[in-house]
Amino acid sequence: MTEHGSRISRVRDQMARQGVDTLLLSVGPDLPWLVGYEAMPLERLTMLVLPLDGDAHLIVPRLEAPRVDTSRGSFDLIAWDETDDPVELVARMLPDRGTIAIGDRTWARFVVDLQRARPVLSWCRGSEVVGPVRIVKDDDEVAALARAAAAVDEIATAMRDVRFSGRSERDVHRELAERISGAGHERLNFAIVAAGENAASPHHEPGDRKIGDGDLVLCDFGGTMNRYCSDITRMFSVGEPPAEIVDAYEVLQAAQAAGVQAATVGVACEVVDTAARSVIGAAGYGEYFVHRTGHGIGAEEHEDPYIVAGNPTALVPGHAFSIEPGIYVPGRFGMRLEDIVVATVEGPRRLNHAQRDIAIVA
Amino acid sequence: MTEHGSRISRVRDQMARQGVDTLLLSVGPDLPWLVGYEAMPLERLTMLVLPLDGDAHLIVPRLEAPRVDTSRGSFDLIAWDETDDPVELVARMLPDRGTIAIGDRTWARFVVDLQRARPVLSWCRGSEVVGPVRIVKDDDEVAALARAAAAVDEIATAMRDVRFSGRSERDVHRELAERISGAGHERLNFAIVAAGENAASPHHEPGDRKIGDGDLVLCDFGGTMNRYCSDITRMFSVGEPPAEIVDAYEVLQAAQAAGVQAATVGVACEVVDTAARSVIGAAGYGEYFVHRTGHGIGAEEHEDPYIVAGNPTALVPGHAFSIEPGIYVPGRFGMRLEDIVVATVEGPRRLNHAQRDIAIVA
Repeated sequence: MTEHGSRISRVRDQMARQGVDTLLLSVGPDLPWLVGYEAMPLERLTMLVLPLDGDAHLIVPRLEAPRVDTSRGSFDLIAWDETDDPVELVARMLPDRGTIAIGDRTWARFVVDLQRARPVLSWCRGSEVVGPVRIVKDDDEVAALARAAAAVDEIATAMRDVRFSGRSERDVHRELAERISGAGHERLNFAIVAAGENAASPHHEPGDRKIGDGDLVLCDFGGTMNRYCSDITRMFSVGEPPAEIVDAYEVLQAAQAAGVQAATVGVACEVVDTAARSVIGAAGYGEYFVHRTGHGIGAEEHEDPYIVAGNPTALVPGHAFSIEPGIYVPGRFGMRLEDIVVATVEGPRRLNHAQRDIAIVA
Repeated sequence: MTEHGSRISRVRDQMARQGVDTLLLSVGPDLPWLVGYEAMPLERLTMLVLPLDGDAHLIVPRLEAPRVDTSRGSFDLIAWDETDDPVELVARMLPDRGTIAIGDRTWARFVVDLQRARPVLSWCRGSEVVGPVRIVKDDDEVAALARAAAAVDEIATAMRDVRFSGRSERDVHRELAERISGAGHERLNFAIVAAGENAASPHHEPGDRKIGDGDLVLCDFGGTMNRYCSDITRMFSVGEPPAEIVDAYEVLQAAQAAGVQAATVGVACEVVDTAARSVIGAAGYGEYFVHRTGHGIGAEEHEDPYIVAGNPTALVPGHAFSIEPGIYVPGRFGMRLEDIVVATVEGPRRLNHAQRDIAIVA
């Protein structure tokens, strides 16, 4: 069976188990993961209609039909014309009653339109049937994640020799974006560059702030390479950092190591979160670690399993996720250290290997 | 009244008119257009809750709260913690019964979750109340569209002096992407580069195909600059094009001019479509013009009004849209010519001014 054939069959097992009659997928990573085609994020509807039994159909706008490779044979193609109503087309393919799972990132306008066209049906998240399959990465997927990780490791290493001083955050962001694309990613997902006090905002948007002497700079970047995501955070300091930063970073490194070490098969995600969090808490920085310890990664930059308090999911071999504790002191500084880790029967396997100290840069 | 205050008040008028009790906005262009803040497209929910009467609230993940500028005063900020349930938070702010409009690009997972939390409510598209306001651009918005258009005009002009021959489509795509970013766009929306027979696919994805002597190359590119979109298509030929191409392009130029000329206030969108289409049809290329004549443009790259058969919307001053007929002969060639046009009381105003002939390049 082909890779896509096997995925479709495993997704259908989930559908049967959960009483889902039809799966509808549009924009987002589920569709390319399942059948190898990515929908354009536009107002013209692209939608895969996958019934529990019977043939799957991919509904696409006529002018995008030439982009579709139907040779894999996992679906029949239906092209709609500019004056057709694609919602009506999809609605006619749905069962009379039952439950429809709809891809998590499908635009709300299509959900609302489909519900209006077929008001008796029940609706649930596509991830309820696709998620349990996607969450466990097979060997090829782990290899793809490892290649993406190696690509950003190289960038993190190269950045150690780059001048930061005198440049704006935005300028360093642009360099990261170019390096990510140059390293073979088809998509930039983010390239956060946050200097000094700006790094206290974990999702800071790189701006005009000039990086100067003594600034601690957070770089968190990643993209999608051959359909799998990379994601890494490393810290850079213009000149030697002061003792306060060195001390906090030592705590952060220990917390990250503790999180990674805890991520063994059978352990609950919330326990991994606690392992990292308690190190930071014990050192007195607890109030400054304002986010979860990590997120799953795969075809999506953030996906299950989330390494967060309240998530009892036990790790199984093939779970892939970030371990990225942080310490954010408002108005002063912020720091984070992030690697991608895969749970294996031999224990946690880090996919990122770039040096984890604070890089001293010019 | 501030710009955002005035927009909120006009959107509320629409809500009252259409019996919508609460508007919910998340990812997509509606939210920044309405209140100046853009939601990150992530699994952590960001959502504006705008009731018909009473205060608006913006629900954001705690770690993104520092990015929010609340000084404009059009909403109150509610930050949620990693272990909170943001859907529950939003659900509690909804009325007991009535109709909720939800932003068109909101992720389906949040629609489904909210519907589960509040099963009695009715749901409609956010664009039903935001669209009628957004579709008419005020002077500042037209000025922003004109600046974005001028930026891509310059790129189109500069590309006339660039070597195409010997390069791959992907390589030219990369150059366009860099120029778009370099010209001040905060986002690249697309940069289609399609050579020879590839251009017969209107949304061709630039690939490894080498551009060679005699190739006709379609470049369709645009981005978002200061929150308003640019979009232009121009044709390039490596060496003098053959008579067949010259003849077809003459038809295309005439069709595009006819479309622009027809776009006067009071005329229905479908009539503008017919004006362009009939020129191509009369010349015998009708079957090769496989898409609508144009799309509205503004905060979104494609939005109302669509210049398409079946759309009776009459143009009013401030409607902004593309006029972009094309001729696509499968296996042979494809061509398109696109400008952005604004309907004004003085007649149609083109925002793009780059030369419209086929540029002869090396």
